[in-house]
Amino acid sequence: MKKRIFNFSAGPAILPEEVLLQAQEDFYSYKDSGMSVMEMSHRSKVYDEIFTGAQKDLKTLLGAGDDYTVLFLQGGATLQFSMIPMNLMPPINKADYINTGAWSKKAIAEAKRVGAVNVAASSADQNFSYIPKEFKFDPEAAYVHFTSNNTIFGTQFRNEPEVGNVPLVCDASSDMLHKPIDMNKYAILYGGAQKNIGPAGVTVVVIRKDMIERSNDDLHAYMNYKTHAEADSMYNTPTTFGVYMCGLVFKHILNKGGVEAMYANNVKKAGLLYDFMDESDYYKPTAAKEDRSLMNVTYRLPNEDLEKKFIAEATENGFSGLKGHRSVGGIRASIYNAFPTEGVAALVEFMKDFKAKN
Amino acid sequence: MKKRIFNFSAGPAILPEEVLLQAQEDFYSYKDSGMSVMEMSHRSKVYDEIFTGAQKDLKTLLGAGDDYTVLFLQGGATLQFSMIPMNLMPPINKADYINTGAWSKKAIAEAKRVGAVNVAASSADQNFSYIPKEFKFDPEAAYVHFTSNNTIFGTQFRNEPEVGNVPLVCDASSDMLHKPIDMNKYAILYGGAQKNIGPAGVTVVVIRKDMIERSNDDLHAYMNYKTHAEADSMYNTPTTFGVYMCGLVFKHILNKGGVEAMYANNVKKAGLLYDFMDESDYYKPTAAKEDRSLMNVTYRLPNEDLEKKFIAEATENGFSGLKGHRSVGGIRASIYNAFPTEGVAALVEFMKDFKAKN
Repeated sequence: MKKRIFNFSAGPAILPEEVLLQAQEDFYSYKDSGMSVMEMSHRSKVYDEIFTGAQKDLKTLLGAGDDYTVLFLQGGATLQFSMIPMNLMPPINKADYINTGAWSKKAIAEAKRVGAVNVAASSADQNFSYIPKEFKFDPEAAYVHFTSNNTIFGTQFRNEPEVGNVPLVCDASSDMLHKPIDMNKYAILYGGAQKNIGPAGVTVVVIRKDMIERSNDDLHAYMNYKTHAEADSMYNTPTTFGVYMCGLVFKHILNKGGVEAMYANNVKKAGLLYDFMDESDYYKPTAAKEDRSLMNVTYRLPNEDLEKKFIAEATENGFSGLKGHRSVGGIRASIYNAFPTEGVAALVEFMKDFKAKN
Repeated sequence: MKKRIFNFSAGPAILPEEVLLQAQEDFYSYKDSGMSVMEMSHRSKVYDEIFTGAQKDLKTLLGAGDDYTVLFLQGGATLQFSMIPMNLMPPINKADYINTGAWSKKAIAEAKRVGAVNVAASSADQNFSYIPKEFKFDPEAAYVHFTSNNTIFGTQFRNEPEVGNVPLVCDASSDMLHKPIDMNKYAILYGGAQKNIGPAGVTVVVIRKDMIERSNDDLHAYMNYKTHAEADSMYNTPTTFGVYMCGLVFKHILNKGGVEAMYANNVKKAGLLYDFMDESDYYKPTAAKEDRSLMNVTYRLPNEDLEKKFIAEATENGFSGLKGHRSVGGIRASIYNAFPTEGVAALVEFMKDFKAKN
């Protein structure tokens, strides 16, 4: 078997080894179908089982009831930044957004093309290093939008903002399925798959059915949630192989004990890094302690030259993707569900060693 | 090695065996990268080589010069049905469309949300069984749109419509790269990848650079060609693994002798079926003889009961996906570039046998 490295990429990101090996085995010819999953008609019986199985397993993992629909779309969170206001804002034509950094800002920019945006809270004053705790919500807003985890600044909501009866919409691109949530708090939970769920090219939208009723018929077909919901995500050809991969990941998580088990492991993994750094005067986590992300651990070294050296030596030692986002610099270790505990432990050892030598 | 069947699916469709085997070998860990292509950052050096290589090879295959840009997007031809008028129609706000069936109609429906559509020709009068030969073009139209191959009715343009100086836009979802074309005739050549090029979830848009200048800044980011062109298709995360698969297909076609070799083989393959049926009084091709598709061979049997029996027995004998589209019935054999000649020959033998027994 080929050698693998510790892949700390922020996304597209590491997938479970068992999932990759199973997909590899079935790649040329899936079970007794005589063809690759990639070559199957999306309307065939064998593919329908794969697709509806993935929808069902995701609902199980999220604890989503019959009042929710799972859509597998394309275009990433980026296209959702537009589809959400297009579908949900009218006729109220105003919505609340919480600004926790780059992704929130992009969502806000597209929403402003549709209607009025009230920024209910922002952590821009401290370069998005924390999660706002106080919000100025508009009780008449069409919805409240927030980004549950910020991959760039390494911050994460511990709990959902309390929004009363206003529908809550969450971009969970980088932490969907990392812990148990109360799905009933969400009107829409969405995200690109390529961080915690599967390969790039699949966009997951879990939508409460009453939200679909808001969509106007004058929307372009692809931009309309009603189009996709009525056709059960088959209005046009979905990313068939990508959804299959997501389905394998969902089954893998179920087999490993569900989101409860993921959460226990994520707390342990992130703890290894944060605890080590809290005892160090050398590595400094950049996010406020109470808002640290379990998915993206961001930190700085004493100076930028040392950071460059750190990244270069880490890469040589088989730790890939540790360079911080180009907009903030520093180090970022992305340790999603599929990232192995031994990889985090090995990074801590490397960090101890690097500190001793530098 | 596992058994494979003859897969006549209209799309997602068969891929070259060599491509599948190579992708399978590298699936778990790509070359010496230590990770699956699926797990790579889209901004990593190793993935950048894959992505730009695919762009370059597609341009080579199409004979597209430096005045063209290759975009790998998401959302299928369906999203392009909207993006094309949104980006290209203003400020003229009118465009010409040729209606050759289901896909043209969907493109027209979305264009009408943006501006005025002049249907320059239509074959609706004979249930789209032919390609119109005369057109009433508006010389002031923003562009002319046509669908080069109709998968449902089995018709195909032999030559591009003559449009003078008006930009020509072509939905080539089901026949891109099936023969040499003069790329300079096209302002935009686009399509979903899942028929002749790669897996579902990749949308190929080859766009002449002057067309990008038409895009207005008030368009939503994902809907704006300028967004994608300026970021070289990396404004958001593309369907990374899908583009990798397309790239393998491009290299495969180049190794096999390019689009000239594809065309020679496609003529031969389709000829086996059409020639046999033309000598038969039992199987009747549905498309006008001069407009028959080389990609989708559609035909009828003497009655619907025989068609049902034909499909059932064909399926038992390892010929999959022969049922005609639900909107027209009958039989459809989709024989894209990757479909093997021996599969077509075997189908002809089966058809002879079925006719003799029924």
